[in-house]
Amino acid sequence: MDLRTLYNKAILGENLYQQVKQARSELYSKYPDSTPFVGKMFSMNQKEGFIKLAKNFKNLAAIMKGKDQQLIQNMHLVTEIGVLFLHFNAFLSTIQMLGTPEQVKYWENLALNFQVLGAYAQTEMGHGSDVQGLLSRADYDLETDSFILNSQDPKSGKYWPGVLGINCTHCVFQAQTFVKGQYIGVQTFVVPIRDKNNQMKQYPGVEAGDIGPKFGFQYTDNGYLYLKNYRIPRENLLMRYCQVSKDGSFKIAGKKAIKLGYGSMLNLRVILVASFCFGALSSTHLAYHNRELAKKYCEETYHLQKKQIGIRDIYFKEDFARMTSYLMSSLKLKEMYARYQKAIQQDDPNILSILAEIHILSAGFKACSSWAQLQTVRQNLIYNDPIGHLNWSGQPQRLGDSIPAPTYEGDNHVLLQQTGKYLLKLFMVIQKAKKSKESLSDKEKFMLGGELSFFVDCAFQRKAVDVLHNLNMNDFESVMKALEMTLFLYIQDVAQSIYSEIKTGEKPIHKLLNEQYQDRIVNYSKFFIHVMNVRFCRSYLLQNSFESKTEKTLQTLLHIYLLSMVDLYKVLMFTYQLSNASKLAPIANLKYQLYTQINDKFLIDSFENPIKEFQNSNSVDVFEKESQNIEAYLTETFTELANEQQKQTPRL
Amino acid sequence: MDLRTLYNKAILGENLYQQVKQARSELYSKYPDSTPFVGKMFSMNQKEGFIKLAKNFKNLAAIMKGKDQQLIQNMHLVTEIGVLFLHFNAFLSTIQMLGTPEQVKYWENLALNFQVLGAYAQTEMGHGSDVQGLLSRADYDLETDSFILNSQDPKSGKYWPGVLGINCTHCVFQAQTFVKGQYIGVQTFVVPIRDKNNQMKQYPGVEAGDIGPKFGFQYTDNGYLYLKNYRIPRENLLMRYCQVSKDGSFKIAGKKAIKLGYGSMLNLRVILVASFCFGALSSTHLAYHNRELAKKYCEETYHLQKKQIGIRDIYFKEDFARMTSYLMSSLKLKEMYARYQKAIQQDDPNILSILAEIHILSAGFKACSSWAQLQTVRQNLIYNDPIGHLNWSGQPQRLGDSIPAPTYEGDNHVLLQQTGKYLLKLFMVIQKAKKSKESLSDKEKFMLGGELSFFVDCAFQRKAVDVLHNLNMNDFESVMKALEMTLFLYIQDVAQSIYSEIKTGEKPIHKLLNEQYQDRIVNYSKFFIHVMNVRFCRSYLLQNSFESKTEKTLQTLLHIYLLSMVDLYKVLMFTYQLSNASKLAPIANLKYQLYTQINDKFLIDSFENPIKEFQNSNSVDVFEKESQNIEAYLTETFTELANEQQKQTPRL
Ligand SMILES: Cc1cc2nc3c(=O)[nH]c(=O)nc-3n(C[C@H](O)[C@H](O)[C@H](O)COP(=O)(O)OP(=O)(O)OC[C@H]3O[C@@H](n4cnc5c(N)ncnc54)[C@H](O)[C@@H]3O)c2cc1C
Ligand SMILES: Cc1cc2nc3c(=O)[nH]c(=O)nc-3n(C[C@H](O)[C@H](O)[C@H](O)COP(=O)(O)OP(=O)(O)OC[C@H]3O[C@@H](n4cnc5c(N)ncnc54)[C@H](O)[C@@H]3O)c2cc1C
Repeated sequence: MDLRTLYNKAILGENLYQQVKQARSELYSKYPDSTPFVGKMFSMNQKEGFIKLAKNFKNLAAIMKGKDQQLIQNMHLVTEIGVLFLHFNAFLSTIQMLGTPEQVKYWENLALNFQVLGAYAQTEMGHGSDVQGLLSRADYDLETDSFILNSQDPKSGKYWPGVLGINCTHCVFQAQTFVKGQYIGVQTFVVPIRDKNNQMKQYPGVEAGDIGPKFGFQYTDNGYLYLKNYRIPRENLLMRYCQVSKDGSFKIAGKKAIKLGYGSMLNLRVILVASFCFGALSSTHLAYHNRELAKKYCEETYHLQKKQIGIRDIYFKEDFARMTSYLMSSLKLKEMYARYQKAIQQDDPNILSILAEIHILSAGFKACSSWAQLQTVRQNLIYNDPIGHLNWSGQPQRLGDSIPAPTYEGDNHVLLQQTGKYLLKLFMVIQKAKKSKESLSDKEKFMLGGELSFFVDCAFQRKAVDVLHNLNMNDFESVMKALEMTLFLYIQDVAQSIYSEIKTGEKPIHKLLNEQYQDRIVNYSKFFIHVMNVRFCRSYLLQNSFESKTEKTLQTLLHIYLLSMVDLYKVLMFTYQLSNASKLAPIANLKYQLYTQINDKFLIDSFENPIKEFQNSNSVDVFEKESQNIEAYLTETFTELANEQQKQTPRL
Repeated sequence: MDLRTLYNKAILGENLYQQVKQARSELYSKYPDSTPFVGKMFSMNQKEGFIKLAKNFKNLAAIMKGKDQQLIQNMHLVTEIGVLFLHFNAFLSTIQMLGTPEQVKYWENLALNFQVLGAYAQTEMGHGSDVQGLLSRADYDLETDSFILNSQDPKSGKYWPGVLGINCTHCVFQAQTFVKGQYIGVQTFVVPIRDKNNQMKQYPGVEAGDIGPKFGFQYTDNGYLYLKNYRIPRENLLMRYCQVSKDGSFKIAGKKAIKLGYGSMLNLRVILVASFCFGALSSTHLAYHNRELAKKYCEETYHLQKKQIGIRDIYFKEDFARMTSYLMSSLKLKEMYARYQKAIQQDDPNILSILAEIHILSAGFKACSSWAQLQTVRQNLIYNDPIGHLNWSGQPQRLGDSIPAPTYEGDNHVLLQQTGKYLLKLFMVIQKAKKSKESLSDKEKFMLGGELSFFVDCAFQRKAVDVLHNLNMNDFESVMKALEMTLFLYIQDVAQSIYSEIKTGEKPIHKLLNEQYQDRIVNYSKFFIHVMNVRFCRSYLLQNSFESKTEKTLQTLLHIYLLSMVDLYKVLMFTYQLSNASKLAPIANLKYQLYTQINDKFLIDSFENPIKEFQNSNSVDVFEKESQNIEAYLTETFTELANEQQKQTPRL
C-alpha cells in the first residue's frame, strides 16, 4: 500500500475514490452553477446560503439517480452537502437499525431515490445528552390506529436537528411511548414533516423552523420542532424491537436485543473519526498550497525559504503526525466494528462485552479526534496559512465545520465520561483478579482479555523500575511501555480515591462521578485514547504491508506523535517515577531529527483534497486572480493615468 | 476600590465609564437603527454589513461632535466600531507621535471632528513583520514640491490595513524615502485616498479596495492599496524627526530621538492587553447569563443546579482568574508607560533602557493575552454557553474578534521572539556580572535593576535546594519563588546552548535565533510573561487598597492563576528539581477549595458588559423571545388546529 492509497481508503473506503471523483466532475460539467461553498462563507447571508444549498442538492440528486447504492450513501463526499450525510447516516441508518425488514425496504426505496429527505430529531430544548429524560410523548390511539405525538411544553421541543429547519420531509423522532396508558419506553418513529409535492408545506400539527444563524454549518438548516396532537399511522413506529398491533397489544424485545440494535448506531462515530481526520488534513493541505502560492507574491522570509525548521514547520509536521495516527486508528475501529457485526451473526456469547468495548473506544476516539481537528484547523487559520484569515483561503469554513464537532453526536466530555466509567469498572475487575482469578465472570474475563489487556500486563507483570530502566526515547517500544504504565498508575490513583469516597457513602455516586471527579475522569480517558491511538497505529503498521517510502514515513510520523504524547504526559511520568530529566533530555534533538526525515511534499502530494479541487474548479483562487489583476492594472491602466496625473493632489 | 471600579478603571480608564454609558444611551435613543452587530453576524452578507457599519459610524459621529476629547478618542467603546479604534489609536496617534506640533494640530482638528477618517497602512502584500523590508517608495520632486509615491510591484501593495478598503479618506503610509536620489530611510506620510465630498471617490493614482470576506471583523473593511506616481504635498511627510525643505535639503534626528518617537507606538499594545481582557470577560459574562436564561427552558442538569464543581465551573473560574490577572497587569503596564513618558520629559539618561524594558513587556503581554482571550472565548462558545454555537448568544462574534488578535499589531511569535532576545542579552549580562560587577555599563546595570531584577536574585542569592525545601502550595510566595527559579534555570539552559552554538560560528546567528531555537525562545518567553503576570498582579494588590470582599476575591483568583501556572510548568519544575510529586500532591484539593471560595455572581455582577446591554436593548435575546413565541403558539394557535386535525396524516 502506498500513502495515497492509505488516505483514500481511510477517508472514502476502498474503491470508492474513483467513483466519487467521477461523480463530482459529472456534477460540475452538467451543472456549472453547483459551485460549492468553499471561500463563499461570508459573502452570502443565511438566506442566500440556504437557497444555494437547495439548488446544489437538487442538482446532485439528479446526477445520482440510479447510481450504485454505496456511492449514493456517500454522496456527501461528492460535494459539501452535510444535509445528505444526515439523511443517510442518521435518518436512514436509524431506520435500517430499528425497522422491520419490510419497513427498511419501504424507506430505503424512498430515501435512496431522494423522494424523502430525512432528519434525526432526538435532542430537545431541555435534553441533550440525557436521552432518558426526553419529554416528547407518543400515545397509541386504538380508534384511529395511529400514534398521537405531543411536545407538551417548550422544554420538549426538538432543538438542533440538522435539515429539520427548512429542508426535510421526514424525521426519525424519539418519544416516551404509551400504549393503552402503559409506558413502553423511549421509542422511535418516522414522522412526516413537510409535503414535498406542495412547496414543502408543513403538515398541520407541525411547527418547525430554523433555529437561527450560527457559526459552523452556516448554510445547513438546524431546526426546532413542536408537535401538538399530531397523528401518524401506527406503522410509522419502527418495530424491529417493539411491535404494537392494531388491537393495542405489544411485544418488546429483551434488553440485549435492544442494546445490540442501538449498537449499530456507533458506526456513525467511527465514520466521524475518519471525517475529522479528513477535515484537519484538508485544512493543512490548503495551508500548504496557499503558502506555495504566497511565495510568488511575498518576500521569501525565513519560513518560506528555509533550511532550518521553525514553528510553522513544526506545526505542519505535527498536524500530519497526529491526524495520520487517528486515520490509521479509524481503520482499526472499522475492523473492530466489522468483527462486532460478524459476532452478532454468529451469536457470540460475549457479544455485549464486544459491544461495550467498541462503544467506549468509538466514543473516546470521536471526542479526541474532534478536538485534534479543531486544534489543527485553528493553527492553520492563524499561523500556517499566510492568507488563513481570509475566506477564500478555505480556512474559515474549515473552522466553522470544526467548532461544533465537540458538541454534536455526543458532547465530548460526556462521551469521555463513558469511556472513563468503563475504565473504573476495569480497575475493580483487576482488583478482584488480584485476589482470585477464578472468581471472575465471563464478562469480567473478556474485559481483561480484549484490546485493553495491556492493563493486565501493567498490573501483574510490569515493574515500574524496570520500565524506567529500559526507557530510551529512540526505542519506540520502551516509550510506549512507559506511557502505558504511567496511564495505568494514574487511573489506579483516581479509581482508588473514588472507591474510597464511595465506601464512606457520604456522597451519591453520580455526584462523585459526574461532578467532583468529572475533570479527572475526562483527563485520564483522554490519555487512554492517546495511548490506544499509538497502539492501534503500531498494530496497523505491523499487520499491513506498505511501499517502503510510505512505511518509513508512517513510522516516523508515529514516532513524532509518540514523542508529543511524552511531552503532554511527562509530568505524570515524573510523578509515577517512569521518567526523569536525563531520560527526557534527548527528546528535543530527536524530534528535530525526525522532523528532518519527513518529506513535506510527499505527504501533501499523497493527500487528494477535493476541497482544493473545488477551489480550483471555481477559480476562487482569488489570491492568484487578484494579483494578476493588479499586475495587469499596474502595467496598463495606470500608464495612462500617470501621464495625465494632476501635478498637485489636495492635501485633504 | 471595589471590583466593579477595578474593572471599569482597567477597561475604560478612570472616570470614563459614566460618560461612555451616557453617550451610548444617547446614541440609541436618537438613532434607534444604530443597532450593533452582536447576534447579527451571519444574518448579513458582507455588503449588508458594510452598509450598516457606515450608517452606525455616521450616527455615532453626529452624537460625538463637540464632546470631550478623551471621550471622543474612546468612541469605539461606545459601540462596536473597530474603524474608530484605528482612526484614533493608529492613524491619529501616529501623527501625534511623528508630526511637528503644527502638523499635529492640523490633523487633530480634522480627525477629532470626523472630517477625515484615517487608516494605518504599513503591512504590504510581501512584508508584514519585516518593516525594514518594505518596498513602497517615496521620491521628493523638487519641481512640484511634492513627494511621488509608488508601489512598484504586487509585493509592495499595502495589504490588510483596516478601514482602507472602502471607508477611509486618508491613511498614514510608510515608504522607503529618497530625496534628490539620496536614501533617507523608512518615513511616514499622510496620504489622501478618497474624496469625502464626492461620494468617497478615490483620487486618480490611487487603487484601493477591500481584500474580501474574512472571519473576524467581518464588517470592517480591510484593504489593499496601490499607488502609481501619486503626488502628495511635501508637508504630508510627518516631519518631527525628519525635515525635508522645499530646496531638497533635509535633516534627520539622531537614532535615539527616532527610537523614542516610535516608543509611544507601544501604547497601542498596552491598550490592546486591556481590550483582550474585556473581550474575554464579556464572552464569559454572556455565557453566564445565557446559562441563567437556559435554566428556564432546560431541565436542570447536573451543571445547572450544582452543589459540586464540574468542568464548566472550573472553566468559568479559571477564565476569571486568568483574565483578571491580565487586567491588573495592564494597569501596571499603563503605570510603566506613564513613567516612561515622564522620563522622556525629564531627560532621564536611562531613557532607552526604560523604553527597551516596556517594549519587550508590552510585546509579550500583547501576545499572551491575545492567546488567553482566544482560549476563553473558544471554551465559552463550545462548552460554557449552552447556546454558544448560535449567533445570538454573542459568542460567534466574540470568536471572530479573537481569532485575528494573535496576528494583528505584531504576530505573536515574532513579538515573543523580541522578548526572548532581550532575555538572552540579560543572561549575557548576568554572566558578565558574575565575573565582575564593576565592568558593567549603565545600560547593563539598568537591565539588572529594573522590573526583571528577580533574575539577579535567582542568579546570585537563591539556592534551588532551599527553594524546593520551602515550597508549599498554600504559601503563595514560596510557589512564586519556585516558578521564578525554574524560569531562570530554563532560560539559562537555552541561552547556554545558543551561545555555545554561536561560538562555533557554524551557523549564522539569525538562523539560530529565528529558526532552530525559535520554538524554545518563544516557549520561555511565554513562561516569562506568565511569571511577570503574577508578579505584576501581586504588586498591584499590595500597592492599592480594596474593599475587603474584593481583596479576598482578587487574592483567591490570583492564587488559582498561580496554581494553573504550576500545572503548566510543573514538568520544568521537576526537571530543575524545584518540585516533586509530594510537593505537588495537594494541588488538586487546594484548587478545589479555592474554587469554592469564589462567588460567581459577585464576579459577574461586578463586570458591566455593554455587549450584554446591546443584546438587551436590541431584543436579540431570541432565546427568550422564541421560547415565548413557542409558548404562545402552543396555547393559542394550536388549540384551533388540534380540533380540526385530520384523523389520518399520510405516511408520506
Ligand atoms: C451543529 C450541531 C448539529 C446537531 N445536530 C443534531 C441532530 O441532527 N440531531 C439531534 O438530535 N441533535 C443534534 N445536535 C444536538 C447535539 O447532539 C447536542 O447538543 C449534544 O448531544 C449535547 O447536548 P446538549 O447541547 O443538551 O448539552 P448537555 O447535555 O446539556 O451537555 C452540556 C454539558 O453539560 C455537562 N453534562 C451533561 N451531562 C452530564 C453528565 N451526565 N455528567 C456530567 N456532566 C454532564 C457537560 O459538561 C457537558 O459539556 C446538534 C448540535 C450541534 C451543535
Ligand atoms: C484582522 C487584521 C487586521 C490588520 N490590520 C492592519 C492594519 O490596520 N494596518 C497594517 O499595516 N497591518 C494590518 N494587519 C497586518 C498585520 O499587522 C500583519 O499580518 C502582521 O504584522 C504579520 O505580518 P504577516 O502577515 O506578513 O506575517 P509574517 O511577518 O510573514 O509572519 C508570519 C510568520 O512568519 C514567521 N516569521 C516572520 N518573521 C520572522 C522572524 N524574524 N523570525 C522567525 N520567524 C518569523 C513567524 O512564524 C510568523 O508567525 C492586519 C492583520 C489582520 C489579520
